[in-house]
Amino acid sequence: MHLFYTPDITPANKDWFLTEEESKHCTRVLRLEKGDQVNLIDGKGGLYAATISDAHPKRTILHIEAVITEYGKRNHYLHIAVAPTKNLDRLEWFLEKATEIGIDEVSLIITQRSERKEAKIDRLNKIITAAMKQSLKAYHPVLNEAISFNKFINQPFDGQKFVAHCANSEKVAIKDQFKPNSNYLVMIGPEGDFTEKEVGDALQNGFKAITLGESRLRTETAALEACFEINFLNR
Amino acid sequence: MHLFYTPDITPANKDWFLTEEESKHCTRVLRLEKGDQVNLIDGKGGLYAATISDAHPKRTILHIEAVITEYGKRNHYLHIAVAPTKNLDRLEWFLEKATEIGIDEVSLIITQRSERKEAKIDRLNKIITAAMKQSLKAYHPVLNEAISFNKFINQPFDGQKFVAHCANSEKVAIKDQFKPNSNYLVMIGPEGDFTEKEVGDALQNGFKAITLGESRLRTETAALEACFEINFLNR
Repeated sequence: MHLFYTPDITPANKDWFLTEEESKHCTRVLRLEKGDQVNLIDGKGGLYAATISDAHPKRTILHIEAVITEYGKRNHYLHIAVAPTKNLDRLEWFLEKATEIGIDEVSLIITQRSERKEAKIDRLNKIITAAMKQSLKAYHPVLNEAISFNKFINQPFDGQKFVAHCANSEKVAIKDQFKPNSNYLVMIGPEGDFTEKEVGDALQNGFKAITLGESRLRTETAALEACFEINFLNR
Repeated sequence: MHLFYTPDITPANKDWFLTEEESKHCTRVLRLEKGDQVNLIDGKGGLYAATISDAHPKRTILHIEAVITEYGKRNHYLHIAVAPTKNLDRLEWFLEKATEIGIDEVSLIITQRSERKEAKIDRLNKIITAAMKQSLKAYHPVLNEAISFNKFINQPFDGQKFVAHCANSEKVAIKDQFKPNSNYLVMIGPEGDFTEKEVGDALQNGFKAITLGESRLRTETAALEACFEINFLNR
């Protein structure tokens, strides 16, 4: 079934015009015709079943046959904050995999030892959108612009807050602190890890230091491990 | 600490010669000198602490100071069989991440719907070796040459055998079937999934059909999810 991401559609819409680019893709690439069925997702939980009423190459018109709201609604809220990796492929890979496995929000944090201070949100969002469509999800994970570590840890968050770091100090496993069906924020450091001061500041701001197991993990692997654990523990 | 993978060393060795390539890397790239310390791993659980006794650019000599055997020995045995992905990057990515998280053996299986029928083992092993060094592991995961699905499922395996597929039929979650500290074999299908017959043949050969959660996962993501679950459940 062909799937389009149409973030502006609402359940009130009875008909929908695809954009010129989508119309071209629909009619010229997919070669769909009047009467063919497509699905739309709005990125906010809405899954729409539609039929092509006019296969126009520039403004294809769809008739909405049915709407499912809260499609695949998750039983928890997961926000992962990660320092952009030096090699951007690794961050992009994390975003694709986290979207497949299940994540609600990603923040990019700039830490003292971050080698990369910025990342192009548009490009990263395209990767998230592609993964969302590929894995048939109706919710689009939120990706936030890069923000400094200090600003970030002072933002309010209503839920469990964890910080993963590599230094030898007291840590707990997520599963031993875990409250099910809750909101979770997990911070993952850069290749060079958080500084001792950053970890201390995080703890003072209500973050709990966690271990993600015995293995020495790369930044993007640690971020995905946290994503795995919290989704798994909420099954 | 600088780490070299020297698969031929044994705990009996008191001194060790680096290869010409390693010697060049050691002296020209890392610029190490006589008296500097390095670590060696043999890929069979041995971690060696050594000191450079002759920083020769072509045949650097190391003196072995101490040996730890069974370094980071795992409490279970995990063998994942996966169909090589059409885009080889995805298989390579899985091998890197599985090595970081923890895996003992990988088999490449050629299924009816496999688009890729082969994969260069040497190149893939280089990726595993790099990940093993990067994540400080002393055991080198075994990568087996590609083999047909039918041959593979008839090979003996002393442990729990699971097959992950996407069809709607009776499945269990790994955690509900799981015996801790055991041997596990998990088969993951190609992009187009296993055929119904392949699933049936697997079940007849003692594999249990499993679900890896509600999300629709890519082949390499499903393989990593299985790797994550079994490592996590054995913590």
